[in-house]
Parts: sequence; C-alpha cells; structure tokens
Amino acid sequence: MTTSDLTAAEKDVRNLCLRAREAALLLATLPTARLDDMLDEIAARLEEEAPAIFAANKKDLAAAGEVGLTQAMVDRLRITEKSLAAMVTGVRQIRALPQPLGQKITEWERPNGIKISKIRVPIGVIAIIYESRPNVTIDAAVLCLKTGNATVLRGGKESIHSNRALIAALQKCASLPKGAVQLIDNTDRALVPFLCRQSDTIDLIIPRGGHSLIETVVAESRIPVIKHAHGVCSVFVHEKANFDMAEKIILNAKVQRPGVCNAIETLLIDRAIADKFVPRITAALNKASVEIRGDETVLKLASGSRIVPATEADWATEYLDLILAVRVVKGLDGALEHLTQYSSHHSDAIITDDPAAAERYLNEVDSATVYWNASTRFTDGGEFGFGAEIGISTDKLHARGPMGLDELTSYKFVIRGNGQVRT
Amino acid sequence: MTTSDLTAAEKDVRNLCLRAREAALLLATLPTARLDDMLDEIAARLEEEAPAIFAANKKDLAAAGEVGLTQAMVDRLRITEKSLAAMVTGVRQIRALPQPLGQKITEWERPNGIKISKIRVPIGVIAIIYESRPNVTIDAAVLCLKTGNATVLRGGKESIHSNRALIAALQKCASLPKGAVQLIDNTDRALVPFLCRQSDTIDLIIPRGGHSLIETVVAESRIPVIKHAHGVCSVFVHEKANFDMAEKIILNAKVQRPGVCNAIETLLIDRAIADKFVPRITAALNKASVEIRGDETVLKLASGSRIVPATEADWATEYLDLILAVRVVKGLDGALEHLTQYSSHHSDAIITDDPAAAERYLNEVDSATVYWNASTRFTDGGEFGFGAEIGISTDKLHARGPMGLDELTSYKFVIRGNGQVRT
Repeated sequence: MTTSDLTAAEKDVRNLCLRAREAALLLATLPTARLDDMLDEIAARLEEEAPAIFAANKKDLAAAGEVGLTQAMVDRLRITEKSLAAMVTGVRQIRALPQPLGQKITEWERPNGIKISKIRVPIGVIAIIYESRPNVTIDAAVLCLKTGNATVLRGGKESIHSNRALIAALQKCASLPKGAVQLIDNTDRALVPFLCRQSDTIDLIIPRGGHSLIETVVAESRIPVIKHAHGVCSVFVHEKANFDMAEKIILNAKVQRPGVCNAIETLLIDRAIADKFVPRITAALNKASVEIRGDETVLKLASGSRIVPATEADWATEYLDLILAVRVVKGLDGALEHLTQYSSHHSDAIITDDPAAAERYLNEVDSATVYWNASTRFTDGGEFGFGAEIGISTDKLHARGPMGLDELTSYKFVIRGNGQVRT
Repeated sequence: MTTSDLTAAEKDVRNLCLRAREAALLLATLPTARLDDMLDEIAARLEEEAPAIFAANKKDLAAAGEVGLTQAMVDRLRITEKSLAAMVTGVRQIRALPQPLGQKITEWERPNGIKISKIRVPIGVIAIIYESRPNVTIDAAVLCLKTGNATVLRGGKESIHSNRALIAALQKCASLPKGAVQLIDNTDRALVPFLCRQSDTIDLIIPRGGHSLIETVVAESRIPVIKHAHGVCSVFVHEKANFDMAEKIILNAKVQRPGVCNAIETLLIDRAIADKFVPRITAALNKASVEIRGDETVLKLASGSRIVPATEADWATEYLDLILAVRVVKGLDGALEHLTQYSSHHSDAIITDDPAAAERYLNEVDSATVYWNASTRFTDGGEFGFGAEIGISTDKLHARGPMGLDELTSYKFVIRGNGQVRT
C-alpha cells in the first residue's frame, strides 16, 4: 500500500507513528538521568496546567451522560483536585524508582576470552490502547519514558478532551524529545486495525479493556501484543481450611473492590466440608450484598435470600460486580479439574492448613499468580512492590501478571573481545 | 466456525493441536526427572530406529533432485551415520543441561508477610515451522520436552519422509505422554494460516526460514510469534582499528560459513582509513573468492577482479553466499547512520582500539548482539554457552538473540500467606 492510498486519518496515524519511532531512537541513546529530568518537568507541568486539564475534563463529563456511561465509568473518568494530585505524585514516585536501563542482567566470560553482557535496553515504541481513564494516559506515558520508550496512546473516546489536555501539557515540556509521547486523537474504532499493522514503527501493542477490543487487536496485529484481558479469579476452600480465614479472604477478594480484574468471580468449596461451610459463607456473602449463583448442592445447603441457580456460562463469567458463582467440587482433584476447564489463568487461591494440598495446587494451577491462604486482590504491581505497573498481563510470553518497569524493557547482548574469531 | 466447516486436513491439524494441549497439561505437572527420562529413552530409540530413519531419508533425497534443491539444501537434508550420531549426542547433551523448570527466578517478602516467588514454568504448546532440516525436528522436540512443553512441528516438505520416521521413533517411547510431540505431516502451505489461528491450544509459534513464510505467520497469527528471521550483519572498521585484527575478523565473519544468519553481509569502512584499508581488504576477500559490491569510493580504491557496483538494495540484502556489500562511511557517525537505516538488528561489530568509540557503538547500535573486536559468528546458543538453542530470535519481546532453555519457559508468581487480605 502506498501512502496515497491512505485516508487522511490513516495518514495522521502513520505520521504520528513515524515521529514516535524517531523519538525512540533518540530516547534509547540518552543518559538515563535525562529521562528522570523529563519526569520532573512533567510533574511540575501537570500542576501548572491544572486549570486547562479540569476544563477539558468537564467537557468529557458533560458528554458522559449522553453516551450512557455507568456511575463507575464516570468515576474513573473524573479528574478531581485529589486525583490530579495523585497523578503528579505517581509521576514523582516513578521518577524515584531505580532505573532499569543499562542494568547488567547477567555477564559471563567464555573460554575463548569474549565477555558477554546481557544489558537492559528500551523496547522502542509502545502503543497502548486503553479505557476512558485519564490517569492511565499519564501513568503509561511516564512508565514508558522512564524506560526509554516512546508511546502511541489511544484512550477511550469518552476521555478524549481530558487526554488532549494532558498530552498537551506533556508536549510543552522542553526536556521531552518531540514525538516521544503521541496521542491518537481520532477515536474511530476503524483505525485500530490500521494501527495494528504499523510493524515498522511500533514494537509492542498493549490492549487493555473489553473483550471485543482485545479480540480485534489479536486478530489484526502484525506487532507483538501483550494482552491485558479479563480475570475470572477464584478461591478454593479445601477440606482442611480454617473457616475464619476462608471467610475473611473470600469477602475481601469479592467485596473490597468488585470491579477489578483480581476480584474473585468463582468460589469452589470442597465437598467434604460443604455441609458446614456453604451455609456460613452464603449467609456472610448475602449480608455483604453479594448475589450467589450456585450449583445444585449450593442451592440445597445455602442460607440467604439472594441465591439463584448457576448456568454453565457462570463458571466462565467475569461479573465485575457483587455476584459470585459458587460450586461444590470433589476435593482438590475436583478443584483442579474445574480450573483446567474454566480458569482465565489470572489469579487463583487455595485456602487450606494442609501444606501438601497447597503445594500441589500451587504447582498444578497454571495461572499468572497462585495463592495459598491470601486474597487474590494482591495481584497488582503496587502490592507486589514494583512501585508502579502498566497493567496485568494475561499472556505467558515476555510478561505474565503485574508488569512493572523491568517488563517494559528488552535486552541486548554486548560482546567485548580482542580479535576472537570462530573456528 | 464449527468443526463441520473444516476440511479434513484442517480437522487433522485441529485434533493434533488438541492432543498436544492435553499432553502439555500433563507435562507441566510431572517431576522434572521424568522429563529427563524421556530424553534418555529418545536417544536410545533413535539409535535403534536408525535403519528406518536412513530408509526414509533416502526417499527424501531421491525426490530432492526433482524439486531442484541446491547442493547446500541437500546437504542439510541428508542424514548420515555421522549426523544421526550427532543428533543422538545432542539429545544426551540437552539431557545433561541443568533443568530450568521450578527454578526460583526471584523471591521476596512484602511488609504484610506474604512471600512472593517467581518460578519458571513451561510455556505450554509450542508450534515450530521450519526448513527441510531433519536435525531441527529432533532438536526442537527435545528442547521443548526438556522444558515441559509439548510441540507441534511443521518441517519443510522436502524432509517429510525423514520427519515421519524421526517422529515415529519418538512416539514409540513409552515414557513420552501421548501427544507430547506432534508432526503436521501435510505440508500444504494453505494449512499454515489455519495453524496460526489455534490460539486456544497453541501458546507460541516460532517460524524459522524464508521471508515469505515469516510474513505469512506474522500476518495471520493470533498466537504470540517469536520470529527467527534474516540477518543482515555487519562489521565496521573504525579509523583506530588494528588492520590485522580487522582482516582476520572480516574473513572469518564472511567466509567461514557464508550460508548462516550470523555471517556478515555488509562491511563499513571509516573514510579516514579507506585509502589504506580498502585495497588490502578487497584483495584479501577476492583471494577468498568473495565478490565485492562496492560504493563509488570502494570501486575507486579496490584492488581485485570481482568488484561490482553496489545498488541501494545491496545494503539490505542477506546474500547467504560469498558476496559482501562494502561501503565507505564518514566515521562512527556515518556507520551509526547506515545501521539505523539498514541493519536487521541481528549482529553488528565494530573493530577499533578506541574504547570511547567502541562504547558509543555498543550503546547506540540497536541489535540483538553487538560486538567490539570479535566476529559476529559467535551469535549462537552453543558459542554463548547455552548448551543448545532453538534458534536466534530477531524479535525484542520475550527472547532476543540466541534462544536457549530459559527462553522456552514462562513464569508464574507463587504467593504464600497466612490469611492476608487487601485493605
């Protein structure tokens, strides 16, 4: 395809990708102190530009009603004095994190005397397609800048005015190379497949958000993709579980923040203790306003008013709401079988006092994060101690689970010799 | 698409992928000693089945003439007593390598007392699409088995009889789970896009070989791909180079084995020393039967008979033959500019006695392996000391450069607590 076959919107995207590529080449060669200087300037600039950012956000909020956003979505879209301050604090926290670039991952010498160093380097240009959450715009741009990567950002259409104002603030920073942070400000979905074909300028695409968006990116992309897809997370209560601990963890994992990917959607209960535990936990969940979708045994044993029969689809559904699918399984084997069939491989937990059962579960469950006696809600870059995260990968290649700064880097082998040749 | 819409050949591929997935689930839970037992049995079985393997290979060799394979291709296709023994030795060497599975990559405790371990686990099912090289069939299957992965192999059509015999030998091994090593024995190219869509059963596709195959896989795949594409590798002779060392390295990198991806295709010479070095190196290369494609300055200064003008296309061509594109550039900056535009980011070397120039080159050249005063021919798993390699990744995600056992693994986070919940 020649440039002349492109629509005007496609040409804009293409040009913006080319500018990002040029910036990436420059970013990769800068001393890392210069990257941190950029983050300092961004933090200061966001504070200065607050009035413009609030004004732009008001436009998005005014339109939110018309397009029928839910209250949770509006809350994520809103930029308040407090949330802007949190963004700025976030930038300064990322600024303060140790710099991964240039780090020697390993180094060794070969018998012939060549010295091989495996060194962290930027990935290049990272495209991020995400929800209508203005804080992600800043987080993503700044995490990528810290690691020497240029970004092409494509946020949700409901946040377009906010994103324009935020990116305008960043682009005013004199320390930032031109093109280092780019916003696709045409949110026409038809441009996503076009973006996915820019393999000569983009090195990685990270799609976050809904199923259909991620499907589109996976189907269309000629660029490596790291998916941030859904989580159908679970807790399994083993026959040797401490019931108090189990109840505390289940309530936390379901209720504390039901709209996030590391909240549980499925509860598996060992048949051996179902008689005792099902009435107790269903009553506690109902009291916490959680609707139960139960299998036959659960329906028989449950105590509470909001108990409905589960269908096959419930075992694979991410509710992101105060709903929990509950199933009685035949011991650890039954739990493992259920997870093999239905787990989304995000975060799954076992509650037990039996170390052998726990270790078998931890070994056999093929999820990014597997827990023994702790809440699945800890699957999070901050909770892991990464300082920040670009998201939670549901893929197995390059990055799995919470993605921090290290996962935003690649590496190269640097070899120093004194004339060695291969024989 | 329902199963009934598939052709018979597609159904076969689909079923074979499903069997590989089942085997992968089992492989992931086996003690690693069991994986090594499989490798022992495979080595022994290959020796027992030698007559059948040679007979099958003869059929491929007989057909090779008709399809017009080059002598180099026939050499790679042929299985001799010696090359079969080398395959068996290779299996035993991989058997003897340290087991990466289960390794704790890192482990730390959080202030709330949860202990996080990052543990190496198999990737799952790996599909490998490769050239007509029967030794790759065994190498790939065994490297993947060592790391607990099932394989779906699709070799070149010229090696189909050999591959069938090799896989039949493997599948006779009682220690191997059924389905752990699968061969697609229909080499119809139309099945490649179908294979690339089996994202529910395959976790990774590694395409090795020609440009058009890799393009097809990248365009069609809904599965993560790690490309093993071409190498347009180079040497840059800096003004401060030791000419004896430069000549030795250039001859080694071009002539020792011209048909491989880490051989050089481009020679860049600093303008400051062109007068002296161009006549010397072109004469030496000509003496070693290398044809020179030179720029204007090279044509003026060269000494020898096989010197032809280079065209723009030469700077980006992988000859895999005794041909070398030679260009005079304006110092280190000129070399860096050339590489930014034309390097395939595989392996590039600088020859210089100036440490500052070397360090700038090593830092700024964005290639998987960058060399100072050594031959690019060391970009190889064996030469790196990995013990074995599945190939050389030309991608930047997950694996870059030589891919050994570690790169055939993923990881998971195992978290042990005593009732922690998120607050």
